[in-house]
Amino acid sequence: MPSILVIGAGAVGAFFGSALARQGARVSVVCRSDYAVVKQNGYDIRSNLLGDHRFVPQQTFQSASEAGDAFDYVVLATKVLESVDRIALLKATARPGATIVLLQNGVDIESEVAAALPDNELISAIAFIAVSRTAPGRVHHQSEGSLVIGRYPHGGSARAEELAAMFKANAIPCKVTQDVVAARWQKALWNAAFNPISIMGGVLDTAAILRTPESRRFIRDTMVEIAATAHAAGHPIDEAVIDKLIEGTRAMPPYKTSMALDFEHGREMEIEAILGNVVRTARRLGQGVPRLETIYSIAKMIEGAPRAGRT
Amino acid sequence: MPSILVIGAGAVGAFFGSALARQGARVSVVCRSDYAVVKQNGYDIRSNLLGDHRFVPQQTFQSASEAGDAFDYVVLATKVLESVDRIALLKATARPGATIVLLQNGVDIESEVAAALPDNELISAIAFIAVSRTAPGRVHHQSEGSLVIGRYPHGGSARAEELAAMFKANAIPCKVTQDVVAARWQKALWNAAFNPISIMGGVLDTAAILRTPESRRFIRDTMVEIAATAHAAGHPIDEAVIDKLIEGTRAMPPYKTSMALDFEHGREMEIEAILGNVVRTARRLGQGVPRLETIYSIAKMIEGAPRAGRT
Repeated sequence: MPSILVIGAGAVGAFFGSALARQGARVSVVCRSDYAVVKQNGYDIRSNLLGDHRFVPQQTFQSASEAGDAFDYVVLATKVLESVDRIALLKATARPGATIVLLQNGVDIESEVAAALPDNELISAIAFIAVSRTAPGRVHHQSEGSLVIGRYPHGGSARAEELAAMFKANAIPCKVTQDVVAARWQKALWNAAFNPISIMGGVLDTAAILRTPESRRFIRDTMVEIAATAHAAGHPIDEAVIDKLIEGTRAMPPYKTSMALDFEHGREMEIEAILGNVVRTARRLGQGVPRLETIYSIAKMIEGAPRAGRT
Repeated sequence: MPSILVIGAGAVGAFFGSALARQGARVSVVCRSDYAVVKQNGYDIRSNLLGDHRFVPQQTFQSASEAGDAFDYVVLATKVLESVDRIALLKATARPGATIVLLQNGVDIESEVAAALPDNELISAIAFIAVSRTAPGRVHHQSEGSLVIGRYPHGGSARAEELAAMFKANAIPCKVTQDVVAARWQKALWNAAFNPISIMGGVLDTAAILRTPESRRFIRDTMVEIAATAHAAGHPIDEAVIDKLIEGTRAMPPYKTSMALDFEHGREMEIEAILGNVVRTARRLGQGVPRLETIYSIAKMIEGAPRAGRT
């Protein structure tokens, strides 16, 4: 069985890392904030899908350099933030021949990694899951729990198939796609609209965002801009998907996006990965996205405002 | 000296009403929320411009119908909100021949009144003042304190000159303009951009809004949309004014807009008067204002979100 290093093993990394370990993979973690607790006791994971269980990593490291580079897979599960040097983390841990897996949010988050580490196979992984860290070393899996993975920039991969087989053996739906970039754009369709809007006005949950016909029309217009950008980037999305997503979101109980939760807790937000990269792609391709530009500008103001400038 | 009724005598109405009373006008007020205190003691006004003083209205009424219609001027100083029936307030108090003065925020707030009360002269008054109610019947004038007034829709007016003379005798700069609608658009240039943006992400003060070159460019682009709408409406504004306003705002200590203060205190906000009317004017004239449309849509989401949907 392969040896796997999960870097940034918070809730998402611990959950999927645990699933791989239960299939026999030797899974180690780099875990900075909860290091002491995880080193001693591993993770306490509550999940209806996997069952409540304890996940004790093969080895627990405090830093990527401490972990070394003796792994078949390096799974990067950090948030995509300016403060996180993803290239340095991967250069310290991914030896030639190792496969890099980006288990991260956002769109166009792979190109920088592919350029910096051209000799490593790169798998991009999109998680659909609600999972959170409730205390140091404690992970609560609330709902969903599926993956779409694929080789970057496109095509098939034996490594992707190997990972998918391990996930599926754990009852985690994992689809291998030949076009993972298109899959990221499909996820961006919802994420790039709802996430940044949810941090405006304090915090807006999905019900507040979709409350009136006018607000639903606005969200639709915003999602049309995302779809147009995806189209310009060579990944067309059927506009009918937009209405389905809006209706599907309305049908669910009101909830807060991941960015809203980050905002509430004063944590860094993935504005660049989730929205900034969409805006930059649109600019590069000459696609006008005035709504997204506006939302992006305001989200950056919110991010940059000292907490004293907020109340 | 004329008899004057100020309806909605909060901080702004009490301040300017007091100035008129000090010139000998018989000034009465309709004051709902602070009625008991004002009826008993009048207003306690702190102001460097007027001096700290007490303003005891000629008569203090709890409602417009109680006030009757025996006035030369009816000054409407309420906020412009869907919950305030301005026409009903004016029909109850403005007899034929009485002059109506709209001492209110926003753009295109006059047409509805002019249509409903075609036989009354209508004066539109724009206040530049920082003044707030610190307790029932207590008014604190912080800074500024000037007026631009003019007959609606345009032209000269002996009544406007009479009012201006009384204000100026009180050291309150009051300019009489022949084109008050243009003056409202000039004020909207700042207001329609900064006010609604300031309620996003909790509350953003002017420093947070203008923090980076990117955010200043975004604000500029937004103000260009307002100027373009004003232009389409027949009231061109020199774009150089935009940069002056941005630089002037940066040069001042950070502060919160009136809408931000309303939002913080859970009060109704003048989104429609300040921004909605700009957006509707643009739509009517076929002027594209995608940034304003976006800001408006999000502001309405924020306004409509139950406080439980916010944190």
